[in-house]
Amino acid sequence: MRLLSGTSWDGVVEQPFMLDEIPGVLWTPEGGLGPRPLILMGHGGGEDKRAPGIVARARRFAAEGGFAVAAVDVPYHGERPTDGEFDRLASEYRARVAAGADTAALDTALYTLVVGPTVAEWQAVVTAVQRLDRVGGGPVGYWGVSLGCALGMAFVAAEPRVRAAVLGLQGAPVLAGAAAHVTVPVQFLVQWDDELMPRAQSLALFDALGSAEKTLHAHPGGHGDLPRFEMDDSLRFFSRHLG
Amino acid sequence: MRLLSGTSWDGVVEQPFMLDEIPGVLWTPEGGLGPRPLILMGHGGGEDKRAPGIVARARRFAAEGGFAVAAVDVPYHGERPTDGEFDRLASEYRARVAAGADTAALDTALYTLVVGPTVAEWQAVVTAVQRLDRVGGGPVGYWGVSLGCALGMAFVAAEPRVRAAVLGLQGAPVLAGAAAHVTVPVQFLVQWDDELMPRAQSLALFDALGSAEKTLHAHPGGHGDLPRFEMDDSLRFFSRHLG
Repeated sequence: MRLLSGTSWDGVVEQPFMLDEIPGVLWTPEGGLGPRPLILMGHGGGEDKRAPGIVARARRFAAEGGFAVAAVDVPYHGERPTDGEFDRLASEYRARVAAGADTAALDTALYTLVVGPTVAEWQAVVTAVQRLDRVGGGPVGYWGVSLGCALGMAFVAAEPRVRAAVLGLQGAPVLAGAAAHVTVPVQFLVQWDDELMPRAQSLALFDALGSAEKTLHAHPGGHGDLPRFEMDDSLRFFSRHLG
Repeated sequence: MRLLSGTSWDGVVEQPFMLDEIPGVLWTPEGGLGPRPLILMGHGGGEDKRAPGIVARARRFAAEGGFAVAAVDVPYHGERPTDGEFDRLASEYRARVAAGADTAALDTALYTLVVGPTVAEWQAVVTAVQRLDRVGGGPVGYWGVSLGCALGMAFVAAEPRVRAAVLGLQGAPVLAGAAAHVTVPVQFLVQWDDELMPRAQSLALFDALGSAEKTLHAHPGGHGDLPRFEMDDSLRFFSRHLG
């Protein structure tokens, strides 16, 4: 892993890195030298590692929770090379969203193109980041919604270092199998009027989670309308399970 | 209102009172002299003002949140006179629960017998308790699940002093009208495998709430299995809206 030139602002060190061809960012509390729990964050479709919803949460998790937080660009997103097939599906997806048409099949197709490499990459990222003195080999949490939930479901199911996960804004039936293999505590977020995910499918995916401790948090509003106070809940959830 | 002899333990003063024929308990932080927000709590069916789930929350709301907390016996519960018709319905209800039979119609019948007097009594309790120097006329919260939600829905819909409410474990269709008149922020609790409340009815009651800010928190388990960490969420919810 190659650490690039970092910046420090408002109590948080933001450190870009490259792991092979994977560009990422690591956030840690300023002055934090010893080991600490790590939260890996997965961005949404069409977003990247510096999406506003990622950065805002990462900074709070680091500043207020004392966590290390890492996010990387998913294949074909952010600074990574594009792919003809992926771009064709993504354009079609955006056109269908704009037209208010059903996007479930495309959502699953896009997920299927990236899930395999993503799980392996994220496992390598955890291993590499935990070699840093200011991170260390403590417990790992995962936060990801929408595409970040779809990919996260496979990652959390496969990766025993993960001890707790915030997931949601997702109900693709293709994820039910992975969900059944998730056994760690989960907070699962549902937007009650989500225009991209049918409510019944989201509830069914919550149902499918194998975890003994799982909590569904639902709020009114659309796919992009997660309330700010839900960020507080994520922070406390990780503090309870990783602290 | 007649204050009876109180006790102080672990940072909380517990003060029984009588308002006309209504027996109640008031919890306040030890040494707390000035005004503070008030949380009224409604107990469940077959319970009373000192049910363990009421006392545990009341003590935490007072000790950690600095709130005043009041609970009174609902008509035909606790120390209040019994009623032949109510007792007959309550016995039948318990028998049907024991037999695993549907209890929805009886739940509604029991609610209907007590809702009228309860709303008026709780309004009088808020007025009387807020005359005490150590409570004062600040914002009011409401916490109640199961029967406490059914009665609370009518109370919160009718009482403008209430600014935030935790409700849940309830889905009786008879409550949809009152729910539509609730406009304050609500945390609504659902037990995913509730043996007394069909899941779809609970979700429909959440849907019916008129509040712009409402959050559904669902957990696996039966009617009596609310997780302890949900108590933390209630405390923070009230701190955010009444603090």
